[in-house]
Amino acid sequence: MFLIYVAYFLLIKSIFVHSELFTSTTHLTHLLNTEIELSKQLETYLKKEYERLDQVEKFLNVIKDEIRQAQGNGDYYFGNPVNAYLFIKHLTVDWYTVEETVSVEISKTMGDNWLFPSFEDYTGSAVGLMRLQDTYKLNTSDIANGEISSNFKSRKLSALECYDLGRIAYTSGDFYHTLMWMQEALDHLNTEPNNTAVNKINILDHLAYATSQQGNVEHALAVTEQILSLDPDHVRARNNKDHYEELIRNKRLTAGDDAPTLDLFPAMDKLDKIDIKNQRPQDYLEERERYEQLCRQNESKLDPKRAAKLFCRYRHNNHPYLLLRPAKEEQLLDQPALYLFHDIISDKDIEEVKRLASPRLQRAIVRDSGSGTFKAAEYRT
Amino acid sequence: MFLIYVAYFLLIKSIFVHSELFTSTTHLTHLLNTEIELSKQLETYLKKEYERLDQVEKFLNVIKDEIRQAQGNGDYYFGNPVNAYLFIKHLTVDWYTVEETVSVEISKTMGDNWLFPSFEDYTGSAVGLMRLQDTYKLNTSDIANGEISSNFKSRKLSALECYDLGRIAYTSGDFYHTLMWMQEALDHLNTEPNNTAVNKINILDHLAYATSQQGNVEHALAVTEQILSLDPDHVRARNNKDHYEELIRNKRLTAGDDAPTLDLFPAMDKLDKIDIKNQRPQDYLEERERYEQLCRQNESKLDPKRAAKLFCRYRHNNHPYLLLRPAKEEQLLDQPALYLFHDIISDKDIEEVKRLASPRLQRAIVRDSGSGTFKAAEYRT
Repeated sequence: MFLIYVAYFLLIKSIFVHSELFTSTTHLTHLLNTEIELSKQLETYLKKEYERLDQVEKFLNVIKDEIRQAQGNGDYYFGNPVNAYLFIKHLTVDWYTVEETVSVEISKTMGDNWLFPSFEDYTGSAVGLMRLQDTYKLNTSDIANGEISSNFKSRKLSALECYDLGRIAYTSGDFYHTLMWMQEALDHLNTEPNNTAVNKINILDHLAYATSQQGNVEHALAVTEQILSLDPDHVRARNNKDHYEELIRNKRLTAGDDAPTLDLFPAMDKLDKIDIKNQRPQDYLEERERYEQLCRQNESKLDPKRAAKLFCRYRHNNHPYLLLRPAKEEQLLDQPALYLFHDIISDKDIEEVKRLASPRLQRAIVRDSGSGTFKAAEYRT
Repeated sequence: MFLIYVAYFLLIKSIFVHSELFTSTTHLTHLLNTEIELSKQLETYLKKEYERLDQVEKFLNVIKDEIRQAQGNGDYYFGNPVNAYLFIKHLTVDWYTVEETVSVEISKTMGDNWLFPSFEDYTGSAVGLMRLQDTYKLNTSDIANGEISSNFKSRKLSALECYDLGRIAYTSGDFYHTLMWMQEALDHLNTEPNNTAVNKINILDHLAYATSQQGNVEHALAVTEQILSLDPDHVRARNNKDHYEELIRNKRLTAGDDAPTLDLFPAMDKLDKIDIKNQRPQDYLEERERYEQLCRQNESKLDPKRAAKLFCRYRHNNHPYLLLRPAKEEQLLDQPALYLFHDIISDKDIEEVKRLASPRLQRAIVRDSGSGTFKAAEYRT
């Protein structure tokens, strides 16, 4: 046994003849601690890296799906304002977030040939979406669920996306739309279990402020109570609660004794019963209402008696060319007279005109009625 | 139809009222190209990143497996010189490679508390492994297949690991071991389909040089022919081929007409029939052979007649203490007399002595017979 031990000992020793630092199994066992620490560090590193790449991959899948739907079909796809809004969002705020987690500067390596939309384009597309909502009197839920009409389908928006839209309205002081979209965000959040992308308190916080600005003090109080039930130490909510209670008390005093002596607490229970006002702010443009009516109008609304008087004809006006090949005229409206001429320009020529014109598209400018200078009008493209 | 088109047109336009750059579906369709390019760039980026992390994860799995086997079992695990070599390799060359692909400087963030072995430790452990191979006359294949003995099992080495061992021998001019390990690398490569970690030509190149240095010109020629069959334009192989052929021709001329007129071409076919010499280089240390014999010796070889004369006894030498508790003496050898005393120090005390001593372990130094100065000896630990 002893000799075997000696042999074993020599065997261990003899392998480290060159080594200066680590000449024994004792030293190797000490080094094993280095390896254990290293494996822990590497494991943490890998976990973080995979999480990071997972975020990038999720974004990649979103835009690949978008490309698949829009490619070769751009006019139809981007004709849906929800798609257009999401598309601009992906190339602005979402991409800014993803690029921060990508170690290579992809935007830069892509070079200057590739234009990216600006943050202003992003807010612009959101505000445009909301104006459209007013013009066509669209239900917020219908937009958020991708059901504007049977012709315009888009995917359902997430609670976070509804919240983002509400945030944009909020930032520009548009509490009318903030109220709609924060309420929508809240509804979507209830159908998204395990949602961690958006905080319910943040939604409620914006909702409370917007609804108070729209004059719903009781509703604001009820929402604030809801914040406090989730986070009893929420400082602003506590202060606001006192403020709203004070407002309600003053209102009752003004209303006199006739007002019902409503017990406010707990207001949360009555959330469903509160009648929420949400008045669209008065517009400075007088023609707005008629303009929007026109947009909503379609031919099916034309009085059948009037429609019966409209007809199609071949027109030549005795012009020699038109005698040979008369123009196809269709009367669309009598008052004002509105005609549609068919087959004047070939499809090929139309495409060519569009091709030549599209790079020169610019925003329309109008003369300001006050100063007389030309400027871009918010209501025009 | 026309009015619907007007409505559709207004609908598209009205959503981009704020946007300066991208106000039409035409522009959005152009932007789609940006998104397509972005998705391509991101896809390439993700692919590269996943490949990079895959390399790190493979390394992590190797060291985790090593830790699992060695932890709490260090003396036994590192007692196997193959394990010790691989362990040092993982914490040196392999880790250097992995760390280059890790964006965070993990070694630095781990701080100074964690020692890493040096590259010298790595080559030292490899040279030690080869010396052990000589001392115990171990078969290269047995080591490479993890079967040194029934007590010392380790995992099978890859072709790359055999090649790395051969490279270390080659770099230190040790063609005796280069020949063994390159031959072994070649054998392992044949059992590893789709191996891309090591290039067969690289192995053959080293093998040809080593075998020529060991005096096997015919073998060197055959191996060189094999390189040329894989890569007919291999410049060094073409030059070496001419050189080896010249050597063989000269040798025959010296040997005279008695030598068989062997047709050299193609030598490859005769690769199996060539008798390969591999003489261990002469050692400057006279005692080497006896020292190694001693290492290989074990008690079973002791002459039974001599062994019969060895016995155990209680020894007290009339010392009062030892009269009360005599020492347990076991005679191991008669000539020279070698005794083993049992139970002199308790196991606990042994551990304490080892614990105190191990931090002070240093390499043994010997007086140089030539210069008379003290220096570290290669053959001592």
